[in-house]
Amino acid sequence: MSLQFLKALIYQRSARGLIYQLRKATWSEHIASRAHTKLFFCTTSSHAAASPTQPQTWGSKKQNRSVKLRAKAADFIMSNPEIEAQLTPLRERVQEQGNLVRSLKEAGAAELDVKKAVAELKARKKVLEEKELALTPSVVSFDRAKMEDLLKRRFFYDQSFAIYGGITGQYDFGPMGCALKSNILSLWRQYFALEEQMLEVDCSILTPEPVLKASGHVERFADLMVKDLKTGECFRLDHLIKQALEKLSKAKEATPALQAECEDIIIKLDGLNKKELADVLAKYSIKSPLTGNDLTEPIEFNLMFATQIGPTGLVKGFLRPETAQGIFVNFKRLLEFNQGKLPFAVAQIGNSFRNEISPRSGLIRVREFTMAEIEHFCDPTQKDHPKFGNVKDEKLTLYSACNQMDGKSATQFTIGEAVSAKLVANETLGYYMARIQQFLLAIGIKPECLRFRQHMSNEMAHYACDCWDAEILTSYGWVECVGCADRSAYDLGQHTAATGVRLVAEKRLPAPKTVEVSEIVPNKQALGKTFKKEAKTITEALAKLSMEEISRAEQELNANGQYKLILADGSAHELAKDTISVKHSSKTVHVEEFIPSVVEPSFGIGRIMYALLEHSFQCREGDEQRCYFTLPPLVAPLKCSILPLSNNAEFQPYTQKLSSSLTKAELSHKVDDSSGSIGRRYARTDEIAIPYGITVDFDTLKEPHTVTLRDRNSMKQVRVGLEQVVGVVKDLATERTSWEQVVTQYPVFEQQEATK
Amino acid sequence: MSLQFLKALIYQRSARGLIYQLRKATWSEHIASRAHTKLFFCTTSSHAAASPTQPQTWGSKKQNRSVKLRAKAADFIMSNPEIEAQLTPLRERVQEQGNLVRSLKEAGAAELDVKKAVAELKARKKVLEEKELALTPSVVSFDRAKMEDLLKRRFFYDQSFAIYGGITGQYDFGPMGCALKSNILSLWRQYFALEEQMLEVDCSILTPEPVLKASGHVERFADLMVKDLKTGECFRLDHLIKQALEKLSKAKEATPALQAECEDIIIKLDGLNKKELADVLAKYSIKSPLTGNDLTEPIEFNLMFATQIGPTGLVKGFLRPETAQGIFVNFKRLLEFNQGKLPFAVAQIGNSFRNEISPRSGLIRVREFTMAEIEHFCDPTQKDHPKFGNVKDEKLTLYSACNQMDGKSATQFTIGEAVSAKLVANETLGYYMARIQQFLLAIGIKPECLRFRQHMSNEMAHYACDCWDAEILTSYGWVECVGCADRSAYDLGQHTAATGVRLVAEKRLPAPKTVEVSEIVPNKQALGKTFKKEAKTITEALAKLSMEEISRAEQELNANGQYKLILADGSAHELAKDTISVKHSSKTVHVEEFIPSVVEPSFGIGRIMYALLEHSFQCREGDEQRCYFTLPPLVAPLKCSILPLSNNAEFQPYTQKLSSSLTKAELSHKVDDSSGSIGRRYARTDEIAIPYGITVDFDTLKEPHTVTLRDRNSMKQVRVGLEQVVGVVKDLATERTSWEQVVTQYPVFEQQEATK
Repeated sequence: MSLQFLKALIYQRSARGLIYQLRKATWSEHIASRAHTKLFFCTTSSHAAASPTQPQTWGSKKQNRSVKLRAKAADFIMSNPEIEAQLTPLRERVQEQGNLVRSLKEAGAAELDVKKAVAELKARKKVLEEKELALTPSVVSFDRAKMEDLLKRRFFYDQSFAIYGGITGQYDFGPMGCALKSNILSLWRQYFALEEQMLEVDCSILTPEPVLKASGHVERFADLMVKDLKTGECFRLDHLIKQALEKLSKAKEATPALQAECEDIIIKLDGLNKKELADVLAKYSIKSPLTGNDLTEPIEFNLMFATQIGPTGLVKGFLRPETAQGIFVNFKRLLEFNQGKLPFAVAQIGNSFRNEISPRSGLIRVREFTMAEIEHFCDPTQKDHPKFGNVKDEKLTLYSACNQMDGKSATQFTIGEAVSAKLVANETLGYYMARIQQFLLAIGIKPECLRFRQHMSNEMAHYACDCWDAEILTSYGWVECVGCADRSAYDLGQHTAATGVRLVAEKRLPAPKTVEVSEIVPNKQALGKTFKKEAKTITEALAKLSMEEISRAEQELNANGQYKLILADGSAHELAKDTISVKHSSKTVHVEEFIPSVVEPSFGIGRIMYALLEHSFQCREGDEQRCYFTLPPLVAPLKCSILPLSNNAEFQPYTQKLSSSLTKAELSHKVDDSSGSIGRRYARTDEIAIPYGITVDFDTLKEPHTVTLRDRNSMKQVRVGLEQVVGVVKDLATERTSWEQVVTQYPVFEQQEATK
Repeated sequence: MSLQFLKALIYQRSARGLIYQLRKATWSEHIASRAHTKLFFCTTSSHAAASPTQPQTWGSKKQNRSVKLRAKAADFIMSNPEIEAQLTPLRERVQEQGNLVRSLKEAGAAELDVKKAVAELKARKKVLEEKELALTPSVVSFDRAKMEDLLKRRFFYDQSFAIYGGITGQYDFGPMGCALKSNILSLWRQYFALEEQMLEVDCSILTPEPVLKASGHVERFADLMVKDLKTGECFRLDHLIKQALEKLSKAKEATPALQAECEDIIIKLDGLNKKELADVLAKYSIKSPLTGNDLTEPIEFNLMFATQIGPTGLVKGFLRPETAQGIFVNFKRLLEFNQGKLPFAVAQIGNSFRNEISPRSGLIRVREFTMAEIEHFCDPTQKDHPKFGNVKDEKLTLYSACNQMDGKSATQFTIGEAVSAKLVANETLGYYMARIQQFLLAIGIKPECLRFRQHMSNEMAHYACDCWDAEILTSYGWVECVGCADRSAYDLGQHTAATGVRLVAEKRLPAPKTVEVSEIVPNKQALGKTFKKEAKTITEALAKLSMEEISRAEQELNANGQYKLILADGSAHELAKDTISVKHSSKTVHVEEFIPSVVEPSFGIGRIMYALLEHSFQCREGDEQRCYFTLPPLVAPLKCSILPLSNNAEFQPYTQKLSSSLTKAELSHKVDDSSGSIGRRYARTDEIAIPYGITVDFDTLKEPHTVTLRDRNSMKQVRVGLEQVVGVVKDLATERTSWEQVVTQYPVFEQQEATK
């Protein structure tokens, strides 16, 4: 999009108009450049934000308590002819529908027809994906109930206010959960804020209504629900229908035709609109599952928590539904802090809130959650990234929109290839995708359970140019954990339109140029005479008019002899020809303004943490009761345990000395001098993922003083000098060395584990 | 208090009863043990929590924009006979009133009379304290307007949503403010969570109403306000009266009598109750200062932000007004995590919210703020602290309740002396006070501007045994920044009473003992016959009755032949003699239960940060426009700058290499390769408190490659090898070495600063 065009746009007053034009321009360019890769079409997403809200639970949603986690490697499937044979017909069904959608779109078919075809496409994709998951070999046998029991028992996290009966969708992080989260965030800061020299900010949670009106959240951030007409109990509409139809189709009297009908609706649920869902409710006379009472019509329920700021009751506010808006409204100051230069990125870690109708799936869908968001501001014509070369060979599993429409699997590419082929829109987006992957792998996410899924254009927020979600495979299926979107100029444009404060950057023109400028010149005397006290307000409003509005005013004045000015408060004033005139002039400009584009990686920390816990949950071979987490030392809540072999008083000075040395080295640790065999205590420290354990035993008392150092994952031990051990643990905990290296440097020790 | 007594208490159902008895017991012991030190009396504090809410603004509140900060050293005053002579009459007036309060209390005077005397006492204290501040020498000349301008200009922080007109009492932290805050919190974690091996948790902000009912916030966490009858505009009552009376007494027609009257009321404002304040409003016919309209009667306005959790509109919730409650409701799980052992401490860092009526004073009184709170749980009979010996020689400036009543100044004590003299209630409280001081000094608070002020019993929350606020002297006067209270068993008792979940610890008895136990035995058949479906609920309720309630039931049965059982939902049931009986038995117990005491250090991070900024704000001698912050390297937002001497292309590889080495060493830094003289750029980095600057110049290009390293505070420079400089900065930034040491190790360099 040309810069002049953008500059003109920011003068526009109508937010919708602005967005619409931006969209048109961006997309037409995009379609031209990417025609070979995929076909673009657009519907408005129901959620305003591209941040991680809705998990893509293609997976085994129904297996609720004890499930098998199956890791999927695209390569494995593609190279296994037997599996491929079973999938081929399903792939063909997806492709057939994908082609139908394409041709409908090309033919300019009615929106409703396109939507229906898309819903069917999604349904077929879902069937394919579930089959794929079912056929791939189980990489690890995973028992969710067992893990949840451990997480609760050792207070990683648990439902908030449990002694008061608990509140669904809210969790308190206990010592281990809190430390894990805080370590993940530290590493995040290091990976992003420090490494990329981002500007980190910390903005308010309480947000006044006008800000969230501008961002679109007040109008569009809603889910559908129905209420029990008598008790007022609320149900999320899609969940309710699904549950009711599942029950219906399982009933004894259900005919195969009814069963097929129900299944069909369930599969297409996501694609149905309010009216269609209301029809389903009516057709099957769905009642409250708890009371059997009648239900209301579907109601749109805004997912933001509302409150009032100040005592008057007049200032409506919300708890922010995402942290991003705090960055956008501070854009001007941040740009200034960066000495006016682009590109730059701003990071923010903080809590956001969404009043989910019926939260479930543990940490995956909650009402209060921590996000880490980045807004990378850049010149829309320069989306290359200076450090792209550092990551270009990083291999990513990409599940492109095109492959999704064609019924194909995700495919591995280097990010360099993906950007060259224009599969990923630009270097900046690609750079962040690679960095997101590096970060997720560093904290311990399994590479075979990570993919980037591109939004199909129908699910992409209408302002986004391209969007890839980092999805992690868990027992809930593939869960969206990090969104990575090119949001174009949407947000800055919206806030500019709402406030009149121009959130723009400037750049020097290669050569000065002359531009035509129009302005409205008020006749102060005449205005004062006609409008008295209001003349000042009118004069100010006139000074703020956009170029478009000025030219409209000129037309109106010429045509009707007057111009109808509408003020911000909605009041209208007819300005006659004698009160204003339009003046044209030309001026020489050296810089031009533009609204920067924004690339937004948005991390859902709770989801990442949950996925990480699943991926690192293990039970000892041959002893299913001894479970533990293989969390990498970098993020493990505590780095080390100190266990005196017994409660012999002679061990105490050594234990204390070790503890204070570890503290000095800033290593979090736990002394367990409780009774209980050493094996039992090892097992307890394994449960809370402590990667290394120092045991003080009788040999410690002798010169040269030594201790044993044990590795959680392998349960192997080495004998290390008392003076060296803290240094060794420090190197291990900061991953400057590995256990494999340590084993080659120190003698292996084999006695104690036998004492369990 | 005996453990048996405590154990009995936890069976009590009435929360008020519990508190009252706890209070009586604790206080009678306290009074006995501390009779020589100070006199105890009690009124209920208007705020439920002891956390930092109200700044003690004794100081120069009126000097609003440009004020002189005067640091007060108690020793200085006491040793200056001239000053002391001026203060003596004021001291005597305080002491006289202090004695009156004491004697009223001893004589058991009416509460109202005591309150009035206390208000007068406070007023006299205020006069004394203001005089003291006015007479002590100005340690530093401080220009608040200048500092605020810098903070805003370089975006340390600023009002939130400024482009939307801003919201008072909410601030966004820009890159420098955010980094400073995050460094303070990191150091806090190291000082407390790590060093003291605390359990850190991270609990929900959204809190359901019953939790905050139990804590007392729903009922008592309120301020008084009045509304403009026509516009609805709200005013905080005490602020409004003060403003109105000040205006009145400054009016031309004001008689000296009226002036004295007004001054008297202003001074006593804090001590007036709702009725008395309403009388003042009426007497002086105070109207809205904005419109002149009539005002409502005083209204109690609860300071919590209310919202609804979930879609039904039936679950009322609040944004937490403090983080502490999240810890208390999780006590059971935390105790279990700690393997049942006391003492242990739990830490939490997080945001809290208070809907202030009219926030002002910048970061000092805001609606959304970060707290760091610690709850240290211990046996109420064992409040010694194992590490007290480490801090016992730490000197603290203590402003005891006694000194406040006697008109004396704060005095220096070692914490060991203070605890021995029973001035500070116990070792645990004393330990934390010393650690709080160590922490505050480590981040850069000036020792002469820090004191610990003991709550006088009338301002102490009714459940607290002792409470000391760390107050920091700023241009707003002495500001309460850290509260440190012994909250006794209050909170755990309240939540136990509200939920029936016993938040207690156990300890082994020296020898097993036999206790009498009473229980109600239901006659199931008879109950079922009479109460049908409700019999089960009744049986369950009977099983939960406290010992007191059981003995009441027995009395009622004997007296009236029936017992009236009141269920949790308020419904009552008459149980006849044939449906229940009371059984007495004895049993041998090996452990006894008790409600732990809680010592709570509670840090207001925003206030600390603000005070720190004031204390570290400086202007260069002879150049008042060159202002900077002397923040210690440990908390400085960025540790280092890299400045190429000019935009010569040859410098670039060196700049880049240095930047990536600093990143690798985890040192936050800023490259400033903009044009502008080196002196100008130094000044810019000084403004954002960067302690060290590396300059790449022409000598850097030659072998051996060297750079200059500059110290912000002294503006001195040394010449350091390119390979060494990152290590030197790392040591400086982590305070492993000091600039004074560096200067002795490397040659001093004197050229560049001249180029400014």
